[in-house]
Amino acid sequence: MSDITIHAQFDSGNIEVLAITGTEARLTIRRDHRSEFFQWFHFRVSGAAGREVTLRLTGLNASAYPGGWPGYRAAVSEDREHWGRAATAWDKEADGGTLTIRYQPAGDLAWFAYFAPYSLERHDDLIATMAQAEGVTSRCLGTTLDGRAIDCLELGEGETQVWLYARQHPGETMAEWWMEGALDRLTDPADPWARLLRQRCRFHVVPNMNPDGSFRGHLRTNAVGVNLNREWHAPTPERSPEVLAVLRAMDQSGVHVAMDVHGDEAIPAAFIAGFHGIPAWTEAQGTGYDRYRAILERRSPDFQTRLGYPTARPGSANLTMSTNQLAQRFGPSHGCVAFTLEMPFKDNDDLPDTAQGWSPERSIQLGRDCIAALGEWLAERG
Amino acid sequence: MSDITIHAQFDSGNIEVLAITGTEARLTIRRDHRSEFFQWFHFRVSGAAGREVTLRLTGLNASAYPGGWPGYRAAVSEDREHWGRAATAWDKEADGGTLTIRYQPAGDLAWFAYFAPYSLERHDDLIATMAQAEGVTSRCLGTTLDGRAIDCLELGEGETQVWLYARQHPGETMAEWWMEGALDRLTDPADPWARLLRQRCRFHVVPNMNPDGSFRGHLRTNAVGVNLNREWHAPTPERSPEVLAVLRAMDQSGVHVAMDVHGDEAIPAAFIAGFHGIPAWTEAQGTGYDRYRAILERRSPDFQTRLGYPTARPGSANLTMSTNQLAQRFGPSHGCVAFTLEMPFKDNDDLPDTAQGWSPERSIQLGRDCIAALGEWLAERG
Amino acid sequence: MSDITIHAQFDSGNIEVLAITGTEARLTIRRDHRSEFFQWFHFRVSGAAGREVTLRLTGLNASAYPGGWPGYRAAVSEDREHWGRAATAWDKEADGGTLTIRYQPAGDLAWFAYFAPYSLERHDDLIATMAQAEGVTSRCLGTTLDGRAIDCLELGEGETQVWLYARQHPGETMAEWWMEGALDRLTDPADPWARLLRQRCRFHVVPNMNPDGSFRGHLRTNAVGVNLNREWHAPTPERSPEVLAVLRAMDQSGVHVAMDVHGDEAIPAAFIAGFHGIPAWTEAQGTGYDRYRAILERRSPDFQTRLGYPTARPGSANLTMSTNQLAQRFGPSHGCVAFTLEMPFKDNDDLPDTAQGWSPERSIQLGRDCIAALGEWLAERG
Amino acid sequence: MSDITIHAQFDSGNIEVLAITGTEARLTIRRDHRSEFFQWFHFRVSGAAGREVTLRLTGLNASAYPGGWPGYRAAVSEDREHWGRAATAWDKEADGGTLTIRYQPAGDLAWFAYFAPYSLERHDDLIATMAQAEGVTSRCLGTTLDGRAIDCLELGEGETQVWLYARQHPGETMAEWWMEGALDRLTDPADPWARLLRQRCRFHVVPNMNPDGSFRGHLRTNAVGVNLNREWHAPTPERSPEVLAVLRAMDQSGVHVAMDVHGDEAIPAAFIAGFHGIPAWTEAQGTGYDRYRAILERRSPDFQTRLGYPTARPGSANLTMSTNQLAQRFGPSHGCVAFTLEMPFKDNDDLPDTAQGWSPERSIQLGRDCIAALGEWLAERG
Ligand SMILES: [Ca+2]
Ligand SMILES: [Ca+2]
Ligand SMILES: [Ca+2]
Ligand SMILES: [Ca+2]
Repeated sequence: MSDITIHAQFDSGNIEVLAITGTEARLTIRRDHRSEFFQWFHFRVSGAAGREVTLRLTGLNASAYPGGWPGYRAAVSEDREHWGRAATAWDKEADGGTLTIRYQPAGDLAWFAYFAPYSLERHDDLIATMAQAEGVTSRCLGTTLDGRAIDCLELGEGETQVWLYARQHPGETMAEWWMEGALDRLTDPADPWARLLRQRCRFHVVPNMNPDGSFRGHLRTNAVGVNLNREWHAPTPERSPEVLAVLRAMDQSGVHVAMDVHGDEAIPAAFIAGFHGIPAWTEAQGTGYDRYRAILERRSPDFQTRLGYPTARPGSANLTMSTNQLAQRFGPSHGCVAFTLEMPFKDNDDLPDTAQGWSPERSIQLGRDCIAALGEWLAERG
Repeated sequence: MSDITIHAQFDSGNIEVLAITGTEARLTIRRDHRSEFFQWFHFRVSGAAGREVTLRLTGLNASAYPGGWPGYRAAVSEDREHWGRAATAWDKEADGGTLTIRYQPAGDLAWFAYFAPYSLERHDDLIATMAQAEGVTSRCLGTTLDGRAIDCLELGEGETQVWLYARQHPGETMAEWWMEGALDRLTDPADPWARLLRQRCRFHVVPNMNPDGSFRGHLRTNAVGVNLNREWHAPTPERSPEVLAVLRAMDQSGVHVAMDVHGDEAIPAAFIAGFHGIPAWTEAQGTGYDRYRAILERRSPDFQTRLGYPTARPGSANLTMSTNQLAQRFGPSHGCVAFTLEMPFKDNDDLPDTAQGWSPERSIQLGRDCIAALGEWLAERG
Repeated sequence: MSDITIHAQFDSGNIEVLAITGTEARLTIRRDHRSEFFQWFHFRVSGAAGREVTLRLTGLNASAYPGGWPGYRAAVSEDREHWGRAATAWDKEADGGTLTIRYQPAGDLAWFAYFAPYSLERHDDLIATMAQAEGVTSRCLGTTLDGRAIDCLELGEGETQVWLYARQHPGETMAEWWMEGALDRLTDPADPWARLLRQRCRFHVVPNMNPDGSFRGHLRTNAVGVNLNREWHAPTPERSPEVLAVLRAMDQSGVHVAMDVHGDEAIPAAFIAGFHGIPAWTEAQGTGYDRYRAILERRSPDFQTRLGYPTARPGSANLTMSTNQLAQRFGPSHGCVAFTLEMPFKDNDDLPDTAQGWSPERSIQLGRDCIAALGEWLAERG
Repeated sequence: MSDITIHAQFDSGNIEVLAITGTEARLTIRRDHRSEFFQWFHFRVSGAAGREVTLRLTGLNASAYPGGWPGYRAAVSEDREHWGRAATAWDKEADGGTLTIRYQPAGDLAWFAYFAPYSLERHDDLIATMAQAEGVTSRCLGTTLDGRAIDCLELGEGETQVWLYARQHPGETMAEWWMEGALDRLTDPADPWARLLRQRCRFHVVPNMNPDGSFRGHLRTNAVGVNLNREWHAPTPERSPEVLAVLRAMDQSGVHVAMDVHGDEAIPAAFIAGFHGIPAWTEAQGTGYDRYRAILERRSPDFQTRLGYPTARPGSANLTMSTNQLAQRFGPSHGCVAFTLEMPFKDNDDLPDTAQGWSPERSIQLGRDCIAALGEWLAERG
């Protein structure tokens, strides 16, 4: 039998092959360009039909979130539509920290990834399809350093300015799957929440804020190794044109509600982080934030408020991050409430799925639920 | 130009042609077999491409709910997938009560109905498809007087016995569209509510309790003109084998929660009616009932609690009706809570849709929301 | 374990249950209304999950074509989309001629039929869909005795009048599956043969000439027990309004080419029968007929010219049959060439498929190939 | 109104923006990396909703086939599924040879390309889907210089070795659309030609021989600027590993029939070129070649034999080209017949389509027809 082969030279591919013998491979993850970060992987294995492959990703103690590997299982697909999980073991001691993936494909091909990937082709299909829906327009807010469009879909006839944006961190692909669910619901002509929200709000939706990092197979950064979610206080054309373009458009529209969609490597749950500790903090903002989390928790068993990030102390908020910056910037004028939504790379441990873990399908459903929760939140406010 | 032609000799078809001249037709609705009831219509017009047809349904002051005609607009489809509404006027004085429908089809064919129809072919497709979903079984509870199967889908591994059943009144087709949404959600492997509910409950789902009436194009009754929802105290093989079969199966499983899905001719809103006034009434049952309605109202802008039927006085409940009978019968043993869900033939006036009115798509979405509401209701109860 | 149940009270259903014990049933086929013919069956079995059922159709020595039963295997489906074949044995001696079907469904439900059924709901969907294709109109040629429309789709801008019609014999459902393939190709904007044919011809397509017999679950006849393909010399409103309506429209348009699509119970092959022996026979007609058969044989391994019906002697043609009548009637004026296309109920023994036998899919493909063959036939003629 | 924006930084993108003013852009095409060739373009225009854009591609007198521009119309899509054609004018005198495209998109976005693109994501989807079909295996024949897999799908149980390969010239995307049609037919369980061919042949299908050039947006060459179809006499790992890998696999299997699928910039027709003039030429090979062309011409009005390339004189064949090399190499041992299939970038002028020109849909249909023609060709040979 011949050796398996491994390829990653495609949209969002990332792996380096150190050695292959038979069905075993020793691998490592390439760092984000001009950055120390690495954690995202995505590659294809060929020639393994009916044989168990053993894939060792080594040197991971140096990865961005070594704490993300215990309990993690790699995503795998043979048909590129359904993404399951492969048996995965973490050994901190072996070879600088080794994740060992074992999987026996039925056919010759299997794709492995840190999470089900979301390609730029699919992004462009999403934009093209949504732009043809009734009442939706598409707008190019700017251009990335590699020369890609920063796409923004807009819909709704109301006064409340709602911004939804995702994939500042490109390896957090669940964020763009979430966008499919959110947009599918928002454009549904029969959905009652969508109908109400389109009457009441103007939506600005950026499904992918970091197409360069996405395409390059990065975890966290853009084409020049910059973490976009540390640039919101002072974005520049040289380092962070993506943030600059979006923030400029936000300044034009104003922002009443913002949701920044992410994935979290370690915590096995979906949760929301806020903007506590901003200088301009008001009770009303805090109440709005708490109320949305409570509504969403009621609406979805795949969302919870127990686990999450620690809350910043008064005055200690990091204003380089988007939601802090937006709540600060548009608080006085718009009473802005800004949410950082985090979905797990692993699973929701309150309702675990041994076959799929957290998945594109669950991200899509949470996207749908977040829209309904927004509707309920606004309706309640009256 | 030749006269239009009109046909109704198909599954759930119902119209009688009194006269046709050019593009104008004088029509009337056939009564349910061995019954006085009539209100459902469903027919096809041929040969009208590009010409406005005028269809006059006469004699409607004698229909089951003359109060349903003011404000009503007829459903129409040219592709048999998308159902819109045609311009419709009601004149109580003309020709014994006349509904006048005007519509100009783009093509040669148009189908008109009281509401978007749901054929037995589609019913069998639904049963066959759902029976193939993971963890679902199908069971034939009995046979109707015309010789049709009373199908029941079953799923879930829990102890809480939930019965969902629809179309006791066969012309209320929105009830089976609702079933598509409910079943689609219940069988979704990624939906968190469905996953929780399948752990906690055993579902018994009867998508169509009256296939004979459905096929015959009846409004309210079965093959022998019996209103099934007046038979639950004492069903018989001769008059109501449908109720007998379902009630026997309920007696075997017990019933903690029941939902009987209907359409209402007059009230422009979706609402729930209960079982107030049953002899065995308990506060706990009443609380459960109120709590579900409140949850569903919060979850869907296409459901409300303001409009609805008057509540029965203590001891005055009609035990021939299914939800009263079930709450009475399974109250002491199971604390049974039973809901009669009503959707409009017209529209939800709180959120009207001028193009479609109430529609299959909205019925499906409400079915999905009712399942989520059930999940929240059970979760809250702990 | 409980007994299986059997139902057939649906569109094109036909079976009578004589006895059921456990998973065994003794059955017989209902005769066509007001006719001696019977051979078509279609019914549903419930409650057999994981158990082998044994279904005995008895009394079949009296069926229309007892010669059709040896070598025949019953069609079966669990999902109502894919139709396979069940193990089937014929015993001429048992119980007046018994066909024994054995099958173990994975799930609770299985549908059995003489051939994959084609419902009137699907027919109406086909008409509605095709009528919306670019350049297609639908026309109602008349009304049946039960009150159903005789639908005719028309397309093409050319002078050559082509008539395609099917299901004079309603139990020959492969004929309407064939129509799906033919229409799908004819309306394909990118297909080169379709593009040429639409330039050169005017197509008149009657996908189902006998909707009453189809719906009633007949083999051969219409609502009053008349074999339509023996009425073409003198159709009447009382016995054969279907033929009368179509023939009247043919007289208006003229007919250059006609294809009458059928199924054959006995011969395990697809073949064409002609109009030899008509009084008006010309060499040119005969050449056209031979040439088409040769082209189609070259184009499809699922068509052949070896097996078929014997050829009528000069002057002995039966002018009550459609293709003889049309070749005779439109021979002098239009050089009409008329084909009776027969597909097998069993299989094409030159290329047998043990899993499916002859199938909807193969009927559809032959429909596509017959259209291409017509294109080649006309192109060759110049 | 703001200026339109243009992006091409995606899979197979190729354009350079020289200037944009309002809705007008002056553009030029990037050369293939390390090559002089250029002709392929693919880019996206944003921000033009309802305004006519004027796109001038300049300097095209230096392109690979300046003779391809007269009569050419650019492909355009707004939904990324349907590709139409835009009004296009060629002026040899202007700005070094200018192609002017004018188009008014309904929405904000439009994609323009030399021909409907075929992305590597779609390629991987195709491979993954086909590899799951019954009886199909996938094999990685080797790796390109950029590190991409050279995929080969294999199916069939017969002795006749058939090789189908496409996109040696990566900008000829119609060749991979053709592959979709060929593979769809070959894997169809109901298609009679496919069933016969799978019995008789072993198919080796390489849908894309040049993934590097495809991804880079090249016209003619691979990652190092090499025209693969001039390497078949002596491929090397440094210049042409794609050819080396495929030829090695061919040497293992032998080759009875080969088809190399291409697009032609100038000739408005589909045609086949052969291997005349090879030293090992035999009459039998020549007869086989002629016979296939005649069959295909009969089978498809979108194929013809009048227009095409001039035939090489005896002994003058260029053995660096694949079909010459294969006919020479496998002639004596296998009687190899090798075809170079060319489809137009423009249209088939015998059957022009003003809306779409030559299209993905027509390429797919020709792929289907080429498979059927192969079946007929082999069947005739007996
Ligand atoms: Ca993050
Ligand atoms: Ca009712
Ligand atoms: Ca027949
Ligand atoms: Ca070429």
